[in-house]
Amino acid sequence: MTANSPVIALHGGAGTILKSNMTPEKEADFHQALAACLEAGLLILREGGSALDAVTASVMALEDNPLFNAGRGAVFTTDAKHEMDAAVMKGDTRESGAISGICGPRHPVLAARAVMEQTEHVFLAGDGAKRFCENADLEMMEPEWFSTEQRLNALNAEMERRRLGVEDDGDPARKHGTVGAVALDQHGHLAAATSTGGMTAKTPGRVGDSPVIGAGTWADDKTAAISATGHGEFFIRWAVGHEIDARMRWAGQDLQKAATDVVTELGEIGGSGGLIAVDAKGNICLPFNSPGMYRAWCGTDGVIHTAIYKDS
Amino acid sequence: MTANSPVIALHGGAGTILKSNMTPEKEADFHQALAACLEAGLLILREGGSALDAVTASVMALEDNPLFNAGRGAVFTTDAKHEMDAAVMKGDTRESGAISGICGPRHPVLAARAVMEQTEHVFLAGDGAKRFCENADLEMMEPEWFSTEQRLNALNAEMERRRLGVEDDGDPARKHGTVGAVALDQHGHLAAATSTGGMTAKTPGRVGDSPVIGAGTWADDKTAAISATGHGEFFIRWAVGHEIDARMRWAGQDLQKAATDVVTELGEIGGSGGLIAVDAKGNICLPFNSPGMYRAWCGTDGVIHTAIYKDS
Repeated sequence: MTANSPVIALHGGAGTILKSNMTPEKEADFHQALAACLEAGLLILREGGSALDAVTASVMALEDNPLFNAGRGAVFTTDAKHEMDAAVMKGDTRESGAISGICGPRHPVLAARAVMEQTEHVFLAGDGAKRFCENADLEMMEPEWFSTEQRLNALNAEMERRRLGVEDDGDPARKHGTVGAVALDQHGHLAAATSTGGMTAKTPGRVGDSPVIGAGTWADDKTAAISATGHGEFFIRWAVGHEIDARMRWAGQDLQKAATDVVTELGEIGGSGGLIAVDAKGNICLPFNSPGMYRAWCGTDGVIHTAIYKDS
Repeated sequence: MTANSPVIALHGGAGTILKSNMTPEKEADFHQALAACLEAGLLILREGGSALDAVTASVMALEDNPLFNAGRGAVFTTDAKHEMDAAVMKGDTRESGAISGICGPRHPVLAARAVMEQTEHVFLAGDGAKRFCENADLEMMEPEWFSTEQRLNALNAEMERRRLGVEDDGDPARKHGTVGAVALDQHGHLAAATSTGGMTAKTPGRVGDSPVIGAGTWADDKTAAISATGHGEFFIRWAVGHEIDARMRWAGQDLQKAATDVVTELGEIGGSGGLIAVDAKGNICLPFNSPGMYRAWCGTDGVIHTAIYKDS
């Protein structure tokens, strides 16, 4: 394998994923889904495609799978609506596209990519973003398409919890649902993509870290491609993606140290979550400070791995 | 003067401010306005108030002045509406608040501060942000209050330019209208605030760098408080505020070198604009790569300065 063997990693969210809440069947479903979503991007890389196309394909597959909180299966706001965020970034030029608060495009990641490719802007939000999507030649879906019974139950449970004033149990589906992918292609370029439905029962209009370039999404060929998942407010305030980039550029740290330290430090201040990262040499780092993070990866050895818990 | 003498700086936007387009009367108006807006924050600092209160007061004064593109005097979108963005950040805790796409609060900077102080979120956008403002005990104004003839003329001229396909002349009022303030208080804390109407004839929904924590707004007591103004898309992709912070923390650079280099590098890739920055020692740096930047500052010597062009 050469240094330009393609590398890809993805996540399907981090959080308090407890083995006690899992069944063997459910675990198997997750492993199978993670592998299939990884393969969608890996196939593109192996055919010589771009990292951008690969991360887009993997995130599209994750968005279509209701197991994950993005696209179909997105969580609900307090209004019982969906407001989805997504971003993409290219490592060669730092071109970026991000979108927030939309419900319409089957694939929010394609909406973010359309912002990057079809406008002079980086970031669109709210009504203007919705209008842009309607005119951007994207496949559109009715709100019902994104809704699942599981997410509606989660909303109802959370609203009931708030009504009763019961202490927050930190349910992972509500707090840490995000998907993302990072890749290195045969041409030596990096890319990152992130997509999310946000937090169950979030305040309408809330923007998390996913569409904030430098926080939940980052890519630069000189350092790394990064996609984060976790308590978004902390990830914004700690500029997580760009912080890892900066430690590599300015402190000479390798990806492993930079990414691991940042996630550890986040955990110490209460910022639970994790991230996936790949550097220009094809190194992969998948740190998280929560009990689990749905993840899959394929390094320069060409072997596909999937994992959920810390010890796996 | 001790190291804890208060320090404050503000900007009213950067761009192609040409002496040939100015009259002595107009210049005098700007200098007077810049000094008055600075004094609003300086007074608070001299009375022992917080950097956060000081930057809030200076930005409120800038928002009320129709000379500047924020609050009253905000530019128009292609829909002939106002969509305002603002952010605040505290250097001691990195607490942050940001808001995008609103038209209602007389002072968008107070809406951003309300996000920080009244919610568990950092960033609200679109309809949800508007609804939040309506319930956040903010002074609200009708859209007409923000509108000025000058900005409507600028919109009409830009729409006509696009209709005729005439080449863009880089008119500064359209591209670089933002206001901001940074301060160091007697207690050794830093804060930053930024507010903007965006770009004349911007696409509705466009989010610039101002409300993106780490891009147009940043504050950390260990490094600096920063508020940027310029071509927002570049400032997001280069994570300008956090990049200066990172060079100070990880490369040991002083504020002067970090801030000046970042603005010079932005200019080299076409990212015109500038920023204001103050560090924890009270050093001030006000670099810009455009011909002018409306600015005012008061360092540890207690003297108020105002300037518009590069040579002043």
